[in-house]
Amino acid sequence: MQFSDRILNTPSSFIREILKVTAAQDVISFAGGLPNPISFPIDALRESADRAITENGSSIFQYATTEGYLPLREYIAARYKKRHGLDFEPGDILITTGSQQALDLIGKVLLNKGDGVVIEEPGYLGAIQAFCLYEPTFVPVTLDEDGLDLEQLEFALQHQNVKLIYTVPNFQNPTGRTYSKGKRSAIYELLSQHDVALIEDDPYGELRFQGESLPYIGTGRLENSILFGTFSKTVSPGMRLGFLITKNKQLMKHLVTAKQGSDLHTNIFAQCVIHEYLTHNAYEEHIRTIIALYKEQAAAMLDAMQMYFPPSVSYTKPDGGMFIWVTLQSGQSALELFPKAMEQKVAFVPGDPFYASKRNVNSMRLNYTNATSDVIQEGIKRLGKIL
Amino acid sequence: MQFSDRILNTPSSFIREILKVTAAQDVISFAGGLPNPISFPIDALRESADRAITENGSSIFQYATTEGYLPLREYIAARYKKRHGLDFEPGDILITTGSQQALDLIGKVLLNKGDGVVIEEPGYLGAIQAFCLYEPTFVPVTLDEDGLDLEQLEFALQHQNVKLIYTVPNFQNPTGRTYSKGKRSAIYELLSQHDVALIEDDPYGELRFQGESLPYIGTGRLENSILFGTFSKTVSPGMRLGFLITKNKQLMKHLVTAKQGSDLHTNIFAQCVIHEYLTHNAYEEHIRTIIALYKEQAAAMLDAMQMYFPPSVSYTKPDGGMFIWVTLQSGQSALELFPKAMEQKVAFVPGDPFYASKRNVNSMRLNYTNATSDVIQEGIKRLGKIL
Repeated sequence: MQFSDRILNTPSSFIREILKVTAAQDVISFAGGLPNPISFPIDALRESADRAITENGSSIFQYATTEGYLPLREYIAARYKKRHGLDFEPGDILITTGSQQALDLIGKVLLNKGDGVVIEEPGYLGAIQAFCLYEPTFVPVTLDEDGLDLEQLEFALQHQNVKLIYTVPNFQNPTGRTYSKGKRSAIYELLSQHDVALIEDDPYGELRFQGESLPYIGTGRLENSILFGTFSKTVSPGMRLGFLITKNKQLMKHLVTAKQGSDLHTNIFAQCVIHEYLTHNAYEEHIRTIIALYKEQAAAMLDAMQMYFPPSVSYTKPDGGMFIWVTLQSGQSALELFPKAMEQKVAFVPGDPFYASKRNVNSMRLNYTNATSDVIQEGIKRLGKIL
Repeated sequence: MQFSDRILNTPSSFIREILKVTAAQDVISFAGGLPNPISFPIDALRESADRAITENGSSIFQYATTEGYLPLREYIAARYKKRHGLDFEPGDILITTGSQQALDLIGKVLLNKGDGVVIEEPGYLGAIQAFCLYEPTFVPVTLDEDGLDLEQLEFALQHQNVKLIYTVPNFQNPTGRTYSKGKRSAIYELLSQHDVALIEDDPYGELRFQGESLPYIGTGRLENSILFGTFSKTVSPGMRLGFLITKNKQLMKHLVTAKQGSDLHTNIFAQCVIHEYLTHNAYEEHIRTIIALYKEQAAAMLDAMQMYFPPSVSYTKPDGGMFIWVTLQSGQSALELFPKAMEQKVAFVPGDPFYASKRNVNSMRLNYTNATSDVIQEGIKRLGKIL
């Protein structure tokens, strides 16, 4: 059998390989990206499923519209109005099978082979993997502490055939960094002079445990702006429910066609259950519970790092989200360190898969949302021994 | 915004446009492809959802494996063993977000731009749409009453760069035709001499209401064979649960990578609910209920056509599935007939979208599964007036 060029050049998920190694019970794993199960409102979802069936009957098991369940899209629009003052209509919103599908659909409708895609360096590996299938030229732009490096971004826009810029402006994966207000404005100014699509992928935006919420870079004001959102971090990742928002009608039309070809529509039963949950429960309070936990867990990890890591090692201090990014001494390879960590029964993700091409980088991603403070402290202590 | 070449060349769903026109209450529509709601075991699914949550707890709301829920894959393997004597292991099975996603994944891993894809003519429009996004060269081969035209298929294999053959061997969409035993053998013999992938898409195979079940063309014996199955026609299409089976390990590895990039994994809650349903209810009896209904509905439509259609019009007589294919006098355009049908308040799908390039064809697809026998008779009577 002969395979396509695109699949032969697409990396399989490095993290999923790591997770197999770290599945042993006595390993403390900071490698995953799993929300804490506290974020799944199990009993409320059970009641919501029951009520959704009673209220909708057979229609929630039948084929449904590609665009998504209208009441859910109305709910999403109303929430952005309330939280961000943004004016979206249900027609601006496409329900996707997780944000991962939104990445795939954008690849389908925008990318010809060789088109330039600006990605944050380091950047979200799921985006690198999804776009890779459309054979673009990746244009990595350094992610500084306050956002994309402006000079590099400007150079890329002037000299490369850039179609698309992919950003995670809040508590980025893998670094936990958040774009500053000033950097957001500067990027907006720059992009308003270019015909390029901007994705703001915002899976963690709701999970801010300190500092003030910041306006989006382009959402609601750039014509070619695309916002991704998801219920994976606040209700359930297993249900695979995300959404994409854009006011560009032509883009939306093409995305709907691409989604028809990809899976016809997103699970309508799941859409109804989540809508039922959102409209009959104290969702905001539920989010506050998650935030309080993650704040405590992040603090536990940072405190332990302060205590057990040598001064040569630096790390980010996130204001929200799920990750901390650790930078080792220059020249040290986190990948080579991994077997030593496994001997100590502690796991992390070496930085390599967050780069489109760099290898043996001196950085690693740590997740703090899926362990207790005690376990976090013990894991960081073990890790400190080998740094 | 500049869009990709692939999306500019992909048709949006013709049928979804038609469905908007035919949504009026007093229109008798044979245009859809909807299973009868009798096929959704609503109360059993409600109980299954409740039990799945009780038994699995938070894990069914968490991220899950790309390959799919292991007990569901074991169930599928056991069922093929029992029904067809085929030896599959769970590792040969990938759970997909509906069969539509299986089409997309195959496009991703096999097709380079310009590669040849043999499709049945007429063929399933969802496959044409899905593959179109990977910019292949479609090689239509006539679908005769007993299956693909052998001479045309052989010519295509010898002269075109064919990577992939897409078939629906049982009660095909749109024609309702079934490949004969002899034709299946002949195609198998031919393909065993070529390095080409064969898809057997079998969404309707369980819904046979007359004649004997036939062995697959290549499944279980051709190395590059791929079988698609789904729960959409026997449990719920809205849940978007299908599966792909192949014994080609290299292919499976690439498909898993492609699925990671596309949606990470299929809704695990839905997988557990359906598995719970399948293992705690009389599934075979449920299928027999659907079959009995569809048999009656197909007979009602064929009887009415015998009574109301002029002798110049011919049509298929399916042994199962959901569709009848009607051929008008040569030169007549079903598309041009459509407005006249709407005046009579009856709807069908003109044949055009089932062809990769032919237009104004003299054929149409009728669905009989979603109306009572009385309504079917009245609709065919109305249609007969304008033929």
